[in-house]
Amino acid sequence: MRVVVTDPNLLPLRDEFEELLPKATEVVWLPDQLLGALRTADVLVGPAFTPEMAGAAGRLRLVQVAGAGTDRIEAPGVPVANTYHHEDSIAEYIVWALIGLRRELPAADAALRRDRWRSNVYNPSIRQPETLGSARVGFLGFGHIGRATWRLLRAFGVQAWAVTASGRTEGAGLNWAGDTSQLDRLLDESDTLVVSAPLTHTTRGIIGAPELERLGPNGVLVNVARGPLVKQRPLYDALRDRTIRAAALDVWYSYPETGDQAAPADVPFGELDNVLLTPHLSGITRQTFRRRIEDIAANVHALANGNELRNVVRH
Amino acid sequence: MRVVVTDPNLLPLRDEFEELLPKATEVVWLPDQLLGALRTADVLVGPAFTPEMAGAAGRLRLVQVAGAGTDRIEAPGVPVANTYHHEDSIAEYIVWALIGLRRELPAADAALRRDRWRSNVYNPSIRQPETLGSARVGFLGFGHIGRATWRLLRAFGVQAWAVTASGRTEGAGLNWAGDTSQLDRLLDESDTLVVSAPLTHTTRGIIGAPELERLGPNGVLVNVARGPLVKQRPLYDALRDRTIRAAALDVWYSYPETGDQAAPADVPFGELDNVLLTPHLSGITRQTFRRRIEDIAANVHALANGNELRNVVRH
Repeated sequence: MRVVVTDPNLLPLRDEFEELLPKATEVVWLPDQLLGALRTADVLVGPAFTPEMAGAAGRLRLVQVAGAGTDRIEAPGVPVANTYHHEDSIAEYIVWALIGLRRELPAADAALRRDRWRSNVYNPSIRQPETLGSARVGFLGFGHIGRATWRLLRAFGVQAWAVTASGRTEGAGLNWAGDTSQLDRLLDESDTLVVSAPLTHTTRGIIGAPELERLGPNGVLVNVARGPLVKQRPLYDALRDRTIRAAALDVWYSYPETGDQAAPADVPFGELDNVLLTPHLSGITRQTFRRRIEDIAANVHALANGNELRNVVRH
Repeated sequence: MRVVVTDPNLLPLRDEFEELLPKATEVVWLPDQLLGALRTADVLVGPAFTPEMAGAAGRLRLVQVAGAGTDRIEAPGVPVANTYHHEDSIAEYIVWALIGLRRELPAADAALRRDRWRSNVYNPSIRQPETLGSARVGFLGFGHIGRATWRLLRAFGVQAWAVTASGRTEGAGLNWAGDTSQLDRLLDESDTLVVSAPLTHTTRGIIGAPELERLGPNGVLVNVARGPLVKQRPLYDALRDRTIRAAALDVWYSYPETGDQAAPADVPFGELDNVLLTPHLSGITRQTFRRRIEDIAANVHALANGNELRNVVRH
């Protein structure tokens, strides 16, 4: 069995991954000559599969994405499987962002570096902050990520509700749930909006100026889904003008093509002090990829033994 | 009934507090002439009570601290009561600090403001971070704060143990607990040290260079107790030299006497990028003081009705 890995996220777990694979599996890591390496590969582990790669592949039996998204798999004819496990790490990120933004902790840190004690104890003009526990959280989308986040937020005592495409959130224990026709109600009742819906033709731009206005001046928005669910210019304006209170943005409007430098948006979010900006890392932890390599290795074993593959999303 | 309030933390809840008090209670807020105001006061609500104040008080029946610490109550002869409720807010702060420091999220935010995507996805020289859920947490002290923190951390899946003065942590569900003779074991087994023990002659300086060495290069320290439990110079050196990984410090070695400016330590923690610095605010939220005014108002009712006071710490 020959496995070609093109996803650099697995490199830190290289030894652990190879130990999980069937004996005598040959693994080719990030080959310089990808098309050549694909000629004799049984499995490709990577985020992308182009028609050119399909043309080069001689005996490929599985394209295994080491994440959830299969939007860069363009070639048909080979089974495609994905994997998840990022939801716990994303949920932790959301908890981190909400505590910090509700209590303006990054601003307090920056001030104390200049010997200034930024709290209402030392400066009565500063507002007394509110706990995460007292938050009223609206989920836009309630899949793997929403559920994992809600599992954590419940421990803090928050109240929460959700709108989803289907309106169904069986057994989750939310205060209420509805379909996206209930979005205005959700925004009216929430001081916290967690965006984790998939990007579709109906969700693109679903949060714009009127929705941010409804979220209101105490509102904190977290986007861990895809940038374009939230319109970038209205979001920037709402943050700058304090139409909403703050935002944490982990997903963007443009990405580096190569390397690690790129402006993430057309508007200068980085100039605002009521925003947390992170480079699409909310799900990227060792624990996410440890569970993913277990899924992937299980699929290589299944191929080797003629058993059924898990998480097949396309044939 | 006449109540004099000298604690500015209650000001944001002024109306709510007055509504909770017995009808016809007169409340004097932050009087300019404190000694004069005390002459006819039945209750003083404030952090300090000096012999001079005791001399001025004509009919005082209760000194009610709006927090836990009674170390600034110097005059005997009047019952002293305290109140808590800061533990949930402090626990949230600890969760915030640990997620951010384990995953280096503040550094990622700072980098993306310069269009640099600081994660191992875009730069393989950056280490893949670890979740809070995978942390191994040692509690030094396990009172109100330790327990509230453990209630939250359990939801993330962490493993934890504690050393306390007594060695007893009944029913908490920790992996193990011992007295302070077990501190070395705790440091060896932990990658996270939560300091929330009281400052006593045995705990002053209990964490110094050898203890930080044991905590080790993956170790993250959070101090929400009192600064001097941790020796400042060895802590600074350990952070600068990466003997430990990071720290969150909410309690300090010196405080502003008036106003909001003071160097919090003799060493420049603010020059380090692996530290979070906050001005003793981890327990300061609206929710903490909402629950405190309920306790305080209950004591004023008890005085008015001749019932037993709650949380009396001294007579």
